[in-house]
Amino acid sequence: MSLREVSIVGIGQLPVQKQASHGLREMGAEAVRLALAEAGMEPAQLQALYASNMLADELQNQKHIATLIADEAGLVGVEALEVRAATAAGAAALRVAYLAVASGQVETAVAVGVEQMSSGLVTSALAKALDAQREVPDGKTLLSQNAWLMHLYQTQYGVPEGGLANFPITAHANAQHNPLALFPDKPITAEDVLASRLITPPLRLLDCAPICDGAAAVILVPTAHARRYTDTPVQVIASATATDRFRVADRPRPLQLVAAELSAQRAFAQAGVGLADIGFFELHDAFSIMACLLLEAVGFAKAGEGWRMAAEGELALSGRLPIATLGGLKARGHPIGATALYQTCEIVRQLTGRAGHNQLSNPRTALLQSVGGAAATVITHLFR
Amino acid sequence: MSLREVSIVGIGQLPVQKQASHGLREMGAEAVRLALAEAGMEPAQLQALYASNMLADELQNQKHIATLIADEAGLVGVEALEVRAATAAGAAALRVAYLAVASGQVETAVAVGVEQMSSGLVTSALAKALDAQREVPDGKTLLSQNAWLMHLYQTQYGVPEGGLANFPITAHANAQHNPLALFPDKPITAEDVLASRLITPPLRLLDCAPICDGAAAVILVPTAHARRYTDTPVQVIASATATDRFRVADRPRPLQLVAAELSAQRAFAQAGVGLADIGFFELHDAFSIMACLLLEAVGFAKAGEGWRMAAEGELALSGRLPIATLGGLKARGHPIGATALYQTCEIVRQLTGRAGHNQLSNPRTALLQSVGGAAATVITHLFR
Repeated sequence: MSLREVSIVGIGQLPVQKQASHGLREMGAEAVRLALAEAGMEPAQLQALYASNMLADELQNQKHIATLIADEAGLVGVEALEVRAATAAGAAALRVAYLAVASGQVETAVAVGVEQMSSGLVTSALAKALDAQREVPDGKTLLSQNAWLMHLYQTQYGVPEGGLANFPITAHANAQHNPLALFPDKPITAEDVLASRLITPPLRLLDCAPICDGAAAVILVPTAHARRYTDTPVQVIASATATDRFRVADRPRPLQLVAAELSAQRAFAQAGVGLADIGFFELHDAFSIMACLLLEAVGFAKAGEGWRMAAEGELALSGRLPIATLGGLKARGHPIGATALYQTCEIVRQLTGRAGHNQLSNPRTALLQSVGGAAATVITHLFR
Repeated sequence: MSLREVSIVGIGQLPVQKQASHGLREMGAEAVRLALAEAGMEPAQLQALYASNMLADELQNQKHIATLIADEAGLVGVEALEVRAATAAGAAALRVAYLAVASGQVETAVAVGVEQMSSGLVTSALAKALDAQREVPDGKTLLSQNAWLMHLYQTQYGVPEGGLANFPITAHANAQHNPLALFPDKPITAEDVLASRLITPPLRLLDCAPICDGAAAVILVPTAHARRYTDTPVQVIASATATDRFRVADRPRPLQLVAAELSAQRAFAQAGVGLADIGFFELHDAFSIMACLLLEAVGFAKAGEGWRMAAEGELALSGRLPIATLGGLKARGHPIGATALYQTCEIVRQLTGRAGHNQLSNPRTALLQSVGGAAATVITHLFR
């Protein structure tokens, strides 16, 4: 529990693109401006900016990006810090913004994520989320680790080939009605998934979220002041982070995502809610297997049965537990440092009746999980 | 003001070295262990770890270091996030740990900083704290920007050659009694400073903090629980961050460090203290000119007169406002991401009567400032 409740009063998202026409600073600043405009907040009213990004050190030769974005957004003077947790960076920035407002020290904060992956050696930079001394020298990458988990899962539980295909199929179906998605017009079939390029067996291209550019932001204020800014605030009812053994090889049961389990338990306890309260789940479907394992870690499916939820349609918009409701990482896109903030924006749209064609009828409480690296870090948030 | 007061109950510092014999993860974990031991806290009692680092992306090919350190320290399950603000990263981690405890969500947190600069291309990685599109292509580095500020200062105020030399002289004098310092046995004179290598005129080698390896950590808990862990808790009475225009060239008065001024004002207002309450100032003497400009920004000296405080002995241990009391960045060393946490450990030593030969007689309230990049970000903390 925190000493002060925190709500979201504005969101800003840029269209996810294969290659954006502007740079990091402009993208980040534009997302902040959109979110401020939605909250009806002047730049001078904003006290703090928490930024997330994963790859700018390598791809743009740029550190210090929180202050860079603040400058570009005309927010000189504001507090600005960068928060990271590998591929879960966006959720890390959201968590710090939440802590800042909850602490009573900050009255208005923006969490902004930005990533520009369209140039440079993305795969090697992404692999720095793994152990540089004990995993990467063995040729491990985020792709190969997820392929290994997928192999382990399919063999251990006797999953048929294509058994996980409904994760990307669901994501691509849902992205069709999200004009900000990278793939708004690319529904796929199980045949497409199985015909897509084999990257690292059994992982195929369509099991993986795409490389792309994007930025998204959300404005947080104390819940007690939220209605000054909007008639439809969304409360962050829980925020929790947990870790697992860093190396996949050090985990006794690698298919059990301990960090996801722990951070979900902590979040559920904070909010005093249970599985039955969750209306939809914006999960980290960077890889089909990760989406599947998160369903099991949180408790929506027993071990070895997460894939059945996808196969049986339970995860569709009309199903028992919709996921990736506006395209997910797979089809909205996964501009790493921005991803969890896109997910948060989408959750706000669902909870405030602004999800258009994909609007859920009674979304109630929303669950968000973000995965850092090969799930060594998992960050969970709940919204209402 | 925060809703809950926060205190430090344990510190851990490794000796600063030219080249450490262990890697990032081991150094970080060891600093955490030392701090836990001092607080008499079991690893299982620790809820969160906030880590700071600046250069591991390039020098160790490693991201995701908060979770890596947590794993190495045997803290699996713990919350772990990385916080950055270029060269002020350590203070950024301290601030987030402070916010987490102040929020009521976290009962026990460690802020740990680690940096290993002894291999790789440090200067180019450090320059990523500047604008990669609009400063670095013009050949700007942190060294050249500080040289330019020094030139501007010396010409604008008619400072004699060697007028700033008392900053490194004071730091080296104070390091002599700090066995953890990089230069515990290297007192220097004004002649040494003026005879040292000219790097970028007028900046000489002895105006610059050294490249080195180190790690330091502090444990934070609610002030109300602090005496469970120690008889001598040190309260963090203020924590504030501010930013300036990112590019030095965009600042109308580059010798006025706006971010330092603003964050100091915010911190003083939070704590309800004034300049006269400050017993000593652990400032960011990465460059002599930066130390000088910080004295002026906070208000201890008028514009153009900070160097006189050094020249007239006011900054010595026996002076009106001691600085760098255990060696400062210049002589204890400046392992970037760890630096502000070393400073915090030293402040705790002073405030709890454990500063040995360099013990101040009545240190009262301590001021800490950390500078990100060319002072685009400045983070201020106050302790009592």
